[in-house]
Amino acid sequence: MTTSKIEINLTNSRKEKPNEENLVFGRHFTDHMFVADYVKGMGWQNARITPYAPISLDPASIVFHYGQTVFEGLKAYRSKDQSIRLFRPEENFRRLNQSLDRLCMPQIDEANALEGLLELLKVEEEWIPKLEGNSLYIRPFVIATEAFLGVAPATTYQFYIILSPVGSYYEEGIHPVKILVENEFVRAVKGGTGGAKTAGNYASALKAQETASSQGYSQVMWLDGVERKYVEEVGSMNIFFKIDGEVVTPAINGSILEGITRKSIIELLAHWGTPVTERKVSMDELAEAHNSGKLEEVFGTGTAAVISPVGELNWNGKTMRINDGITGALSKKLYDALTKIQTGENEDSLNWITSLSPTYEEIK
Amino acid sequence: MTTSKIEINLTNSRKEKPNEENLVFGRHFTDHMFVADYVKGMGWQNARITPYAPISLDPASIVFHYGQTVFEGLKAYRSKDQSIRLFRPEENFRRLNQSLDRLCMPQIDEANALEGLLELLKVEEEWIPKLEGNSLYIRPFVIATEAFLGVAPATTYQFYIILSPVGSYYEEGIHPVKILVENEFVRAVKGGTGGAKTAGNYASALKAQETASSQGYSQVMWLDGVERKYVEEVGSMNIFFKIDGEVVTPAINGSILEGITRKSIIELLAHWGTPVTERKVSMDELAEAHNSGKLEEVFGTGTAAVISPVGELNWNGKTMRINDGITGALSKKLYDALTKIQTGENEDSLNWITSLSPTYEEIK
Repeated sequence: MTTSKIEINLTNSRKEKPNEENLVFGRHFTDHMFVADYVKGMGWQNARITPYAPISLDPASIVFHYGQTVFEGLKAYRSKDQSIRLFRPEENFRRLNQSLDRLCMPQIDEANALEGLLELLKVEEEWIPKLEGNSLYIRPFVIATEAFLGVAPATTYQFYIILSPVGSYYEEGIHPVKILVENEFVRAVKGGTGGAKTAGNYASALKAQETASSQGYSQVMWLDGVERKYVEEVGSMNIFFKIDGEVVTPAINGSILEGITRKSIIELLAHWGTPVTERKVSMDELAEAHNSGKLEEVFGTGTAAVISPVGELNWNGKTMRINDGITGALSKKLYDALTKIQTGENEDSLNWITSLSPTYEEIK
Repeated sequence: MTTSKIEINLTNSRKEKPNEENLVFGRHFTDHMFVADYVKGMGWQNARITPYAPISLDPASIVFHYGQTVFEGLKAYRSKDQSIRLFRPEENFRRLNQSLDRLCMPQIDEANALEGLLELLKVEEEWIPKLEGNSLYIRPFVIATEAFLGVAPATTYQFYIILSPVGSYYEEGIHPVKILVENEFVRAVKGGTGGAKTAGNYASALKAQETASSQGYSQVMWLDGVERKYVEEVGSMNIFFKIDGEVVTPAINGSILEGITRKSIIELLAHWGTPVTERKVSMDELAEAHNSGKLEEVFGTGTAAVISPVGELNWNGKTMRINDGITGALSKKLYDALTKIQTGENEDSLNWITSLSPTYEEIK
């Protein structure tokens, strides 16, 4: 791995690190960031690691007005042998390119981006939490920087990677959440941007989330925007069901984000000999399964929580309690298996981990 | 009108003004901008006019990641008596508040915002173009500035107004454009953010626009995301049809932006005794009307072009030529009437104009 192309400029004033005992998600950022610039006709250039600092943009920059921006989210874990472990980072940069394409933004070089991330992690190694359950959240993102009010793809962009030490999603262990099935608002529709990890999808979700929170629910479950019958996602996670012994998840359809945790669960279950069926799942089917006692488990999947078991679904004012509101056996088994692969406690038998040794040598 | 609350800090280095003969839309910006800050619990504060300068934001600012941003677009015209005229600016600030609500962002005080705009126009009066057909494009926008990677409404925001001198949309007079009816991509769906003027709607539209442009069409016509049968908008404009003598436009349905030019045309036609029917308009109806020679006129409406006549629609590879590809009588009449009210050539009989005299006294 060559690093000659990445210029490194270290800060003179390191920040005090937050207390690892009570890290809040997404509030603390490390001392440095990775940046690269794109100019149409010249490609990506000036890959660099610089002190974490404000971004200075013309007020007419396209990102402020027309939302040309995409992002990714992944985590670095410190294993017991002090090596630094990343979970399938190449999948994040592959998906970043898919999102960039949907938004008419330039492709990145996935290998270079991963190299940039690994270099940044070496510089920020001290920021990777040591407390069990904690990790370093990684946020790559690309923004359109051109100052132009015409509605057209920008000709200049910046690619950033910033890092944030975060606590475990579950302060007191994995526990099930209450979910409100959303009938009024729609996250995305076929032909839109739901399959891309782009800002607009999250902006449009806030209103429903606000309503759900005010009613005591932690997330909403999104239905399809066409028939309002089929399950799409839950909050900003993918969703799985165990119905009468069968594990099912909504098939990728153009409006659902193809989660990397989702993909990993499908692969892990196949590896265990428990195939997952990817198909349409209607609310009617879920209600019927619940009535007949066959809705055994429901869980969301994503980078932040890994597995988020659902203890209660509210649909049109009717409550479906799932597995007596406690975490199901499959949910727990998947959570344990994935987190132990991520942190190095279990063997990486599916070759998912990119690892840096304590001496910073890439050991994958 | 009191201006005591707006702090004014003028620049020492004024820019050279661009040549009015060949102004490109959205490329040139004036010497100053209006800014106000919002902090949750404290409301909007620090309303100020400052030199036009880059915005400096933490890389974790919510606008970059989750797209909490809304905007408006309107124009200031210089009339022959040198007064400065705004077309229904109170409608823009009213709609800005509707957009802010959809995005879980704080409401602005509409009167204060208009006052801020008028003060800014006084400071930048020299920037309002003198050449007939030119105008000063006004872009109010609000962005979420909090540095936080949790998916939640921000607690801090900034409100900006920037100004850009622009040329006439039609360099050689009003002329019809070719439009591709979009079957693959969808701009917005009921339950989403299509009714709000927010970045994500524009980001999602770029891909279809790119395809249309590559095939020689200037815009796409969006169909509804549910049945893919009914017309929604064209490009980033509303759309009107004259079918067998009846003027129709798609009814506001939650996914169509409620344009101020659209509204003004409906009101103007009612004032003339020619009512507009707001209802669903299907592509089947348009094709049938075209076949029977009853599709008399088609035109888009928006702030930039005012009226943009459509000379050709392509739907599923079939071309419908409209009014022999020339501008229809109604399109022309509406264009002339609206632009003459905007520039002060015709009487403002519907009380749409907010005007500043050459001595900067508000005269409405």
